[in-house]
Amino acid sequence: MSKQFGPEYVRAIAPYQAGKPISEVAREFGLDEANIVKLASNENPFGVPESAKQAMAQAAAELGRYPDANGYELKLALSKRYDVPMEWITLGNGSNDILEIAAHAFVEAGQSIVYSQYSFAVYALATQGVGARHIAVPAKAHGHDLDAMAAAIQDDTRLVFIANPNNPTGTFVKGAEIEAFLKKVPSHVVVVLDEAYNEFLSKEDQYESAAWVKQYPNLLVSRTFSKAYGLAGLRVGFGLAQPGITEMMNRIRQPFNVNSLAQAAAIAALNDKDFLDKSAQNNAAGYQQFVEAFEQMGLEYVPSHGNFVLVKVGNDLAAGARVNLALLKQGVIVRPVGNYGLPEWLRVSIGLPQENAILIAALQKALAGTRAE
Amino acid sequence: MSKQFGPEYVRAIAPYQAGKPISEVAREFGLDEANIVKLASNENPFGVPESAKQAMAQAAAELGRYPDANGYELKLALSKRYDVPMEWITLGNGSNDILEIAAHAFVEAGQSIVYSQYSFAVYALATQGVGARHIAVPAKAHGHDLDAMAAAIQDDTRLVFIANPNNPTGTFVKGAEIEAFLKKVPSHVVVVLDEAYNEFLSKEDQYESAAWVKQYPNLLVSRTFSKAYGLAGLRVGFGLAQPGITEMMNRIRQPFNVNSLAQAAAIAALNDKDFLDKSAQNNAAGYQQFVEAFEQMGLEYVPSHGNFVLVKVGNDLAAGARVNLALLKQGVIVRPVGNYGLPEWLRVSIGLPQENAILIAALQKALAGTRAE
Repeated sequence: MSKQFGPEYVRAIAPYQAGKPISEVAREFGLDEANIVKLASNENPFGVPESAKQAMAQAAAELGRYPDANGYELKLALSKRYDVPMEWITLGNGSNDILEIAAHAFVEAGQSIVYSQYSFAVYALATQGVGARHIAVPAKAHGHDLDAMAAAIQDDTRLVFIANPNNPTGTFVKGAEIEAFLKKVPSHVVVVLDEAYNEFLSKEDQYESAAWVKQYPNLLVSRTFSKAYGLAGLRVGFGLAQPGITEMMNRIRQPFNVNSLAQAAAIAALNDKDFLDKSAQNNAAGYQQFVEAFEQMGLEYVPSHGNFVLVKVGNDLAAGARVNLALLKQGVIVRPVGNYGLPEWLRVSIGLPQENAILIAALQKALAGTRAE
Repeated sequence: MSKQFGPEYVRAIAPYQAGKPISEVAREFGLDEANIVKLASNENPFGVPESAKQAMAQAAAELGRYPDANGYELKLALSKRYDVPMEWITLGNGSNDILEIAAHAFVEAGQSIVYSQYSFAVYALATQGVGARHIAVPAKAHGHDLDAMAAAIQDDTRLVFIANPNNPTGTFVKGAEIEAFLKKVPSHVVVVLDEAYNEFLSKEDQYESAAWVKQYPNLLVSRTFSKAYGLAGLRVGFGLAQPGITEMMNRIRQPFNVNSLAQAAAIAALNDKDFLDKSAQNNAAGYQQFVEAFEQMGLEYVPSHGNFVLVKVGNDLAAGARVNLALLKQGVIVRPVGNYGLPEWLRVSIGLPQENAILIAALQKALAGTRAE
């Protein structure tokens, strides 16, 4: 046996399992990449906005230079959009980076972090990565139980993660409830409000978290360009918080964490209202398409506020893995969620209408086939 | 005063000071961006290789997707180039990411990290970031004193950083001396051999660190595409090490740390021998150009093995800052190194011949002007 390096708490980590890329599924199952449908990673089915492509082409000449470590132009654009000072903004290599930076910046080994059962896998990983203690609060109807989460905060708690909407379940907590929670949390505990799927919310559900940042010095709002803005492959997210938080994040942030093309593309995407509207409309229609199909097929699902739906594909603990394999063989990639303690379920991203239709047909075939086994 | 968040050791960090981007200097000094010469960040003066631009254009269509979290294609190319298994490779968001991941993966708060005085600033930041104890070993002729570093290792030391060539001094330790050091280091201490400037070494100086990885289970070799390969703006670096190290790194690595375009561009750049040769030749010629000018001007400099030169611009503790300001006013950006404890010196990157000439002329003017004050 080879020598072991590193702290016990790092050795205990089971690394994040990303969705299989199309190329990997093609290699593994001997399929043609062109025939594969990927609805696994909550990506934008329209891809990158044209406006962002143009901005990248202009920025490409300067790629031999390091990125602007302060992200001046992008922060300026975000500052205007969210009406907060530039100094309140932290840029991240995706919002994943914001979540990891927050754990490193605010929590020492042995202290605790509170998050919800069935919430985003990176919260548990970030907690383990700093050797902190997990306080995973049981979910309520697959979503956040904020009263229980407030009650779960201990003396040594330094951070709370809230995903709204939540991934992988799609659940949503109304703005008024979040604000009531913020009022209850001790002021020395940092609350990370992860809003990766915010742009998919209906008008009635929208709330003004950027305004709360002015009121709550312990609030960090996290957003991403990977979902509604279509820039997953470029890696850019950001956090909004007062200087007490932002200046600490900047001590942990890697100076060149956001690459030059991502900065340029994000500015363009931020101002591309047409693309955002088109994405939201497609998402609402695709959600209806899935919901109708699942109801017709008699499948239980969790009502979703994101660009994905959690659907129950069987009653035994192997159901998710089994149906996932049957889908992969048909060239359809979705996300099994056994690692979330949801082995009977699959998470399906909302794609273009034709992609959704292929998934529905493949799922019907998979369920017929696997039931018959 | 606002409430303080986070551990004491994070609050103590002074964030990395990146080189000023051209746009920032233009804003600050009211200059035209087109007239500014930046020789501040050890970037490749040829910019991005054409081959990498073409590879990016092909990859751009898929940017709405997440990057391949396992970096299959790039690891395959690196595996062939360095004759190590794919499973021994860690990809990083620049080699900065590799250095940070190593500190997080192998060192707990309170344990110690050994590095050299005048070595890369990120070693100290990564040490602080995990709450570890610094053991900064005095330099020998501005470079690494490996005997002293071996002797400085304590019972609680878990990591040693070595930069070869070193930034910001340009010093170099011969391969045989590094290997002698590896033989001396206790096998539970991880040695990070940071070779960001390796591709600029002369033929006689080159040594086979990738082969050492097979022999030393505690060795992590770190490389970057930001320097000789011209991809600083894209953020891609990598580490080579046996599974005992690599599997731990993968527990701390953010799953999508390297963006899609960076992966595609790096494969192309890795195979672009012409670009690498052209860069090395330009660098050797530019080094001679600087050395001759500095000798003519009677300026002390540290013989360099990288793509930059450390030059002494005065004898008082304000010399570096004063001359730097005089250069900025002329539209020339270089790097002051007061934060390294070298306040009389400036670090000058090697650019194109005409850029080097502008720097030399501006430096003569700056020194004449500041001496006269």
